Amino acid sequence: MSKTNLSDRARVTPPSPIRKLAHLATKAKKSGIYVYHLNIGQPDIESPKEFFDGLSLFKQKVVAYEQSQGNESLCLAWSKYINRTLRIQTTPEQLLITMGASEALVFLFMTCCDPGDEIIVFDPTYANYLGFASIAGVRLVPVLSNMENNFALPAPSEIEKRITPRTRAILACSPNNPTGTVCIEEELRFLYDICEANNLFLIVDETYREFVYDDLKPLSILHLVPNSERVIVVDSLSKRFSLCGARIGCLVTCNEEILAATLKIAQARLAAPTIEQFASAYMLDHIQDEYLEGVRSEFKSRRDALYNALREIPGVAIHKPQGAFYSVVQLPVDDAERFAAFLLSEFSYKMRTTFIAPAAGFYMQPGYGTQQARFAYVLNRSSIEEAIEALAAGLERYQKI
Amino acid sequence: MSKTNLSDRARVTPPSPIRKLAHLATKAKKSGIYVYHLNIGQPDIESPKEFFDGLSLFKQKVVAYEQSQGNESLCLAWSKYINRTLRIQTTPEQLLITMGASEALVFLFMTCCDPGDEIIVFDPTYANYLGFASIAGVRLVPVLSNMENNFALPAPSEIEKRITPRTRAILACSPNNPTGTVCIEEELRFLYDICEANNLFLIVDETYREFVYDDLKPLSILHLVPNSERVIVVDSLSKRFSLCGARIGCLVTCNEEILAATLKIAQARLAAPTIEQFASAYMLDHIQDEYLEGVRSEFKSRRDALYNALREIPGVAIHKPQGAFYSVVQLPVDDAERFAAFLLSEFSYKMRTTFIAPAAGFYMQPGYGTQQARFAYVLNRSSIEEAIEALAAGLERYQKI
Repeated sequence: MSKTNLSDRARVTPPSPIRKLAHLATKAKKSGIYVYHLNIGQPDIESPKEFFDGLSLFKQKVVAYEQSQGNESLCLAWSKYINRTLRIQTTPEQLLITMGASEALVFLFMTCCDPGDEIIVFDPTYANYLGFASIAGVRLVPVLSNMENNFALPAPSEIEKRITPRTRAILACSPNNPTGTVCIEEELRFLYDICEANNLFLIVDETYREFVYDDLKPLSILHLVPNSERVIVVDSLSKRFSLCGARIGCLVTCNEEILAATLKIAQARLAAPTIEQFASAYMLDHIQDEYLEGVRSEFKSRRDALYNALREIPGVAIHKPQGAFYSVVQLPVDDAERFAAFLLSEFSYKMRTTFIAPAAGFYMQPGYGTQQARFAYVLNRSSIEEAIEALAAGLERYQKI
Repeated sequence: MSKTNLSDRARVTPPSPIRKLAHLATKAKKSGIYVYHLNIGQPDIESPKEFFDGLSLFKQKVVAYEQSQGNESLCLAWSKYINRTLRIQTTPEQLLITMGASEALVFLFMTCCDPGDEIIVFDPTYANYLGFASIAGVRLVPVLSNMENNFALPAPSEIEKRITPRTRAILACSPNNPTGTVCIEEELRFLYDICEANNLFLIVDETYREFVYDDLKPLSILHLVPNSERVIVVDSLSKRFSLCGARIGCLVTCNEEILAATLKIAQARLAAPTIEQFASAYMLDHIQDEYLEGVRSEFKSRRDALYNALREIPGVAIHKPQGAFYSVVQLPVDDAERFAAFLLSEFSYKMRTTFIAPAAGFYMQPGYGTQQARFAYVLNRSSIEEAIEALAAGLERYQKI
């Protein structure tokens, strides 16, 4: 039989740097080693009781298709939730429910761009944006941010240099995955001004919006420009409510053309899961603000634990992240991917080891981040301390081989 | 503000013919009219008790991401289920869990085709294939089947005529949505032979596999060619178990390259919903074969009810579908879409009306199917009879205006 070839795009789609070493972790676990997962943004925080309450109230006898744009009660509850917590005004009709923020982004890439069109992103960038771009045939054009500057947004002039006739949008993620950096009002404002001056869409991924620490308060682009047709917010319940597996996200915009076009694409995939939408609507209607306050202070304490433990290790460079639950850390190794694989496959410390995500996969530009890794501080404080203890021992061993 | 334009692909993506009139149905309902939904493949059959049992057994405190390739127990349970009911041999590693058959098809279009590549389909075709193709930048090349021949597959020579250097796959759906036609062994065999001779993938959408009536037995392409690397089966729990809203599908293939490439794309979207996968695994492990037997005989009786009621109406032409729960029906109207809109917006019979899906949207070739509609016999027998009674009255009224 002659061999049938895969598509080029299937071959060039990069594997997820977050999950590509997962098979090594599985093998380590099978050999009895305990693995601390700092590679993936999967918090160990319990999902809210209100979600499970909602789940137990699902009494429909037929698990039927939901509407393509999303469950009506969920759109209403989410819009109210946004309005109450952020003190802004959205309407349920401005929301379209998606399977996680991931699907919202794929829909937007398709709606804003034809194949070959460009979206400006900031490097390092959330690695899966590359996957979405490859699916949608979109070219991501990275503008470098760097650790010395706490991964803050580059200057407007640096961004404007990358605009071409094919640029269709700027995509920012704040609080940022993978860096933990938070855009301040001034930065969001200049991004918007650039979009306005160059007729671009501004897509802001606000998945981690509430996870800001120290003196920061949650800030949405909708605070600054509530009624702009060029602004689209991507949102998700995954991190905020520790519901990663529910796959419930949304996009919010007052651009009716975007909503109508996205709905056509959404109709082709029929609908997001019915039961999770039902339970999420109930949760958003009933959850108390204390839940998020508790989660936020828990993550702050984890951030401090990670930061304090890592800066003790010789040769490690870390900036202090102010949001989300990630940090990109410089390690004293030749190749962070080789080191991460070493930790999983050739090393253990008290029968334990640590799984980190090599950062090179988060940079669009080749050659960057080879000595960096993304750490997700999603485990409790003592687990983080143990994980960094194991990592430090691993570093010492690795440097000797 | 200058206007930011949407992408061309967003503008050319066709709206779903199944859902495009949904706003008229909503309006009719708000005015107190009862609407019989024969437009959409949403059965009123109760989802299995075993699914809800599984749901209530979900006790994880964190709704965490599932593995990108799917829940391990679900892959195992589904593979066992296939092996037991079809008497074939698959392994759990040959499955990749997706958000409905829809996502499996999008993944396959992307994995098998680069933008501009072609897939051969049969006209009329499941309308959402067009949406997936538009998302993936794939050109669907239709080969016409027709009502006079019960929508059977066209002759091999007709299919081979459409093969070009850019053809990458043949996609067949059997039992068929929208026609209800079932491929016999000889047809599947010649499709495979064409793929073999021309080095193409053969994708078979077996979502309705068990829904075959009269003397037919469920037949999978895997019965004929269990070990071919060019064969990929798309499967779903949606229809078989009345779980449309759970969004659980899969693809099955022994082609490891396809599995690995699809997994990369699947990793970008992280995972399918955790809770539904858990409940589905439990269901597949515990469900009795009697459930499907009961559903099958129920649909057969509905098929008979629809067929018998429609053939009584003057000017209506209908073939007797042997599978799935659809039929494409010729109506004595100038334009089935206008008629469908009329039924929803300008008509009621005893405060009731019927929602049908205009068939033109199921044909890739323009000009076909304008007098046809797809009927989904997803309601119980008496509702179907009432729906057709209302439709007949609507036809009479429509012909007078």
